Amino acid sequence: MNIYYNAWSSKYKQPFGAVQAGKPVDFWLDVVHEQVQRVSLSIHKDGHQNHQISMQEIEKNRYHTQFTLEEGPGLYFYCFEIIYRENDLVKSLYYGTNEWGGVGSTYECVHDVWDYQLTCFESADPAPNWYRNSIFYQIFPDRFFNGNDQGIVAGKKPNSFIYGTYDDEPMYIKNASGEVVRWDFYGGNLKGIMQKIPYLKELGINALYLNPIFEARSNHRYDTANYFQIDSLLGTLDDFTLLVEELHKNDMHIILDGVFSHVGRHSQYFNYDGAYGKNNGAAQNPHSIYYDWFDFDHYPDEYKSWWGIKDLPQINKENKHYQQFIYGNKESVIAYWLSQGVDGWRLDVADELPDSFIKGIRACLARYPNKVLIGEVWEDASNKISYDHRRNYILGSHLHSVMNYPLREILLNTLLQESTPKKAAHQLMQLAENYPKDIFYNLFNNLGTHDTERILTKLNRNIRRLDQAIALLIFLPGVPCVYYGDEAGLLGGKDPENRKFFPWQHENQHIYQLWHKWLHFRMQEENLKEGEFAIFYDENLLGVIRYRNLQMNLLMVNLTSVNQHVEANRLTFLNTPNEVAQKIRLAVNELTILPQGLIDLTL
Amino acid sequence: MNIYYNAWSSKYKQPFGAVQAGKPVDFWLDVVHEQVQRVSLSIHKDGHQNHQISMQEIEKNRYHTQFTLEEGPGLYFYCFEIIYRENDLVKSLYYGTNEWGGVGSTYECVHDVWDYQLTCFESADPAPNWYRNSIFYQIFPDRFFNGNDQGIVAGKKPNSFIYGTYDDEPMYIKNASGEVVRWDFYGGNLKGIMQKIPYLKELGINALYLNPIFEARSNHRYDTANYFQIDSLLGTLDDFTLLVEELHKNDMHIILDGVFSHVGRHSQYFNYDGAYGKNNGAAQNPHSIYYDWFDFDHYPDEYKSWWGIKDLPQINKENKHYQQFIYGNKESVIAYWLSQGVDGWRLDVADELPDSFIKGIRACLARYPNKVLIGEVWEDASNKISYDHRRNYILGSHLHSVMNYPLREILLNTLLQESTPKKAAHQLMQLAENYPKDIFYNLFNNLGTHDTERILTKLNRNIRRLDQAIALLIFLPGVPCVYYGDEAGLLGGKDPENRKFFPWQHENQHIYQLWHKWLHFRMQEENLKEGEFAIFYDENLLGVIRYRNLQMNLLMVNLTSVNQHVEANRLTFLNTPNEVAQKIRLAVNELTILPQGLIDLTL
Repeated sequence: MNIYYNAWSSKYKQPFGAVQAGKPVDFWLDVVHEQVQRVSLSIHKDGHQNHQISMQEIEKNRYHTQFTLEEGPGLYFYCFEIIYRENDLVKSLYYGTNEWGGVGSTYECVHDVWDYQLTCFESADPAPNWYRNSIFYQIFPDRFFNGNDQGIVAGKKPNSFIYGTYDDEPMYIKNASGEVVRWDFYGGNLKGIMQKIPYLKELGINALYLNPIFEARSNHRYDTANYFQIDSLLGTLDDFTLLVEELHKNDMHIILDGVFSHVGRHSQYFNYDGAYGKNNGAAQNPHSIYYDWFDFDHYPDEYKSWWGIKDLPQINKENKHYQQFIYGNKESVIAYWLSQGVDGWRLDVADELPDSFIKGIRACLARYPNKVLIGEVWEDASNKISYDHRRNYILGSHLHSVMNYPLREILLNTLLQESTPKKAAHQLMQLAENYPKDIFYNLFNNLGTHDTERILTKLNRNIRRLDQAIALLIFLPGVPCVYYGDEAGLLGGKDPENRKFFPWQHENQHIYQLWHKWLHFRMQEENLKEGEFAIFYDENLLGVIRYRNLQMNLLMVNLTSVNQHVEANRLTFLNTPNEVAQKIRLAVNELTILPQGLIDLTL
Repeated sequence: MNIYYNAWSSKYKQPFGAVQAGKPVDFWLDVVHEQVQRVSLSIHKDGHQNHQISMQEIEKNRYHTQFTLEEGPGLYFYCFEIIYRENDLVKSLYYGTNEWGGVGSTYECVHDVWDYQLTCFESADPAPNWYRNSIFYQIFPDRFFNGNDQGIVAGKKPNSFIYGTYDDEPMYIKNASGEVVRWDFYGGNLKGIMQKIPYLKELGINALYLNPIFEARSNHRYDTANYFQIDSLLGTLDDFTLLVEELHKNDMHIILDGVFSHVGRHSQYFNYDGAYGKNNGAAQNPHSIYYDWFDFDHYPDEYKSWWGIKDLPQINKENKHYQQFIYGNKESVIAYWLSQGVDGWRLDVADELPDSFIKGIRACLARYPNKVLIGEVWEDASNKISYDHRRNYILGSHLHSVMNYPLREILLNTLLQESTPKKAAHQLMQLAENYPKDIFYNLFNNLGTHDTERILTKLNRNIRRLDQAIALLIFLPGVPCVYYGDEAGLLGGKDPENRKFFPWQHENQHIYQLWHKWLHFRMQEENLKEGEFAIFYDENLLGVIRYRNLQMNLLMVNLTSVNQHVEANRLTFLNTPNEVAQKIRLAVNELTILPQGLIDLTL
């Protein structure tokens, strides 16, 4: 028996991808068999009862049904059941997905069937216009630029170290037990960022994402000590408001890192060592207003902390006082900084924040125009389960976007030839399908962050591969973000190597020019921001299509280390209208792509 | 039988203490017995044949002889032999010293006798006048003062750290194997020292001893990288010559730390990591002119190093090229810096330098007027044995002085009541006896250095004890040296705690005033510099006398924690002329000294 379905083809499913709650979805299934008795759609919402819906044979061997998503936002899972007769026996077959979606497989046993995912979102949730049009630049503030005269480092902390030179390799200063005993700083600051606005504009940047900037002990500042205070090494509130003003004057935007899952052990809230006063903070005084934010197992030394890191006492996010403090009113942390002109937040470890907490932040944001909310999620956020709960990050009223770590993984695996173009195409299409379109186009795309190896290091310093990686980043839906220094050719493995100081005056000009070229290209090509997305591949090539009304931008990368001659009839297109695919076939046939090279075309 | 001798009394030995070669020494011995047959002096030079010299009975029960030190400089050891008859038997008795000298004991068996030491020196070896009139201040240059505008640290080294604040506790940055992986600096420099000349003068200082200042990797700079280069963090040659000029204009002097036993692994001489050029230095090139300075066991990784510290390759000081380099001609290290105005040298680890090497340095020094040479020796340098050799440090033509670590030990033991006033008096008198007088008055006296705990810490922060310690330092023969910051009340155990940054603006004013008072007192009282030295004690009190022609300065310290009422007739005087003792008895009888207190008198 031949059964065929393709979730990525409008011939079999409409609309493509995620669907708004209350809307109908049409399914078509091809079943070629003489004695079919019944074809049905088997669909259930995550955790809800299953529906078995008969499909009508609308033409020979072709079955159809429509299902309306009336059970509200969430994930729906479906497969098809075919009951038929063979040799006087009534038998069943099932059709479900493969690993990545699209065309599926026939299963004989119901227990083996792998359901298709259908994401159902609350309502369209577009990000502000400026966001979609942005190219971000992520700055780890201590490591970018010191704007003080003569390189003076102001506001230094007690018992800390300043690197002798900007070329020094970053390192942790630890004791024999492996604990950080002194924090190390280079002395980058807000004035430095402000002075580099012309540099960033020239590079093609129009938005900044800053790693934490509030008072803290460490150089990464994820150990917040005071949510309302700019860290002394970075500057003052005046420096910050000047920076924001100057960015806005330059049509640039800025988002901050919101670290709300935990605070610093040496914060005014926890105050372990009493630096904030002998009677203040949860660890100094059980009657402190902050006491209930924390979970003490044995006061004051044993307490819940993030991943067991004692330096980061964990917050009980269900605490009403804490919720008020973070997003409750105009004096809350979120509101205060938005009123200072901040254009949005990236939520650190969003997995650790309850959905209701994220929703509360979003509601606070909504009172200000044009703000964006991005979450740190390392996996496909559409179906993420954390702490035994399916998360609602991207179903509406929560996050606008998540950091697209899966994209980085897909690109690296492909460019390093640890995976195939086909697999990459399928993985990318799966993301496109699982995320609501608004979210998919909002995804915060990067080739590296402060938590990953540098892209150039991962690519074994291969600049041809880097060119491909940047081009793919630029062509794929989502908002690109450049990790500071990647454009200058910084190298390094994981933390702390990925946090070197920006190599001013020693930038790799070749690499800079690559980034410069692609970022400017992105800015000028509307299709790369809002165009439809499709993808194609053959054994050796991966192609990305962005199109609107047959106006299209096309990227093809040669993943091999030999010349590749394009044969149009060997290309497989996913989610690509026929006329688009046809236009491409004509354009690319007989082209040759150099080893580890790429071709981009505007058609 | 009663036998009595006292090496510290002019009634029994003349002259007191060490004696110049070729000069006679008179010995008198009291022996009260009816049947004495023979009394003799048994004396030999260290390693030479013994002389048995009969003593004449010059009056009843009193024997005398004279011995001339014709065998040249060195140590002579002596005791007395008494042959007598008892009950028709001929018997022998011996008289030798106790632990500290002075009055000795009778021994029955020759093998048990503990000989007296008699130091014989080549010739009088006075230091320059300025030296005797000095009060030194020892500066660990990285930790004193940064003279740059706005605290800028210039000349920073690659892969080093600068402390965040001057109040930071010093620490070593080590890897898991305990090796220093980055050097830590505060940024004190030569300009800073120059700017503090007025402060130092006001304190009562008129000479500086600087820990090493030549190019090196570490903050202590005992790992010399280039003997002819001021370390970049400290400043330039111009800064140095300006400092020297300014000091001399202010009638102040300066000595440097000469580190000649070893160099830095990362020096231009050894050049382990090639930082000084891929073909330069002993470890990079076996044909290097420096290759023969070192002893390689397995080239280039295994080599002799100071105390096994691989960072400090040891020099073969017998190497002629090295000797030339250090002190051979006008271009040598010693000569070069003397010609830059340096007033002398402190030789690091003098024990590790052969006598001939020290003599070579001294000969080089002698070509310049008024230079001083001091050695780092931790024990009584008169009888020190290092590497199986009796050392000639203080016998003439070698060192003018040594660092008087034994003094610090004696004072601490006494002030902490771990020892008795009597023992202290004897130990001090032993030093007075063993050293040639010039050397004894040249001794470089300190209460602490970069190699010891801070004095205030050792004294358990007891400021009354500190007052006593400073007073004793000031009253005792030798040249006092203040370890930077001791006058400001710095605390700390051994390295690195004893190397904190000077607490400018947070000086302990009470402690400063103590130092200020005593240092100025020393400067104005000629007796404290050149006066004769004697000492007295009782069970609870220790007294120091400095006198000339019956003009005297007197110090008495109460070592107990209760009031002490002085009873003149219970005091024991050592090496004190009768008329001096008598004057003191009259002056101090019936005085009361407060708990842990002191009295100083000018008589």
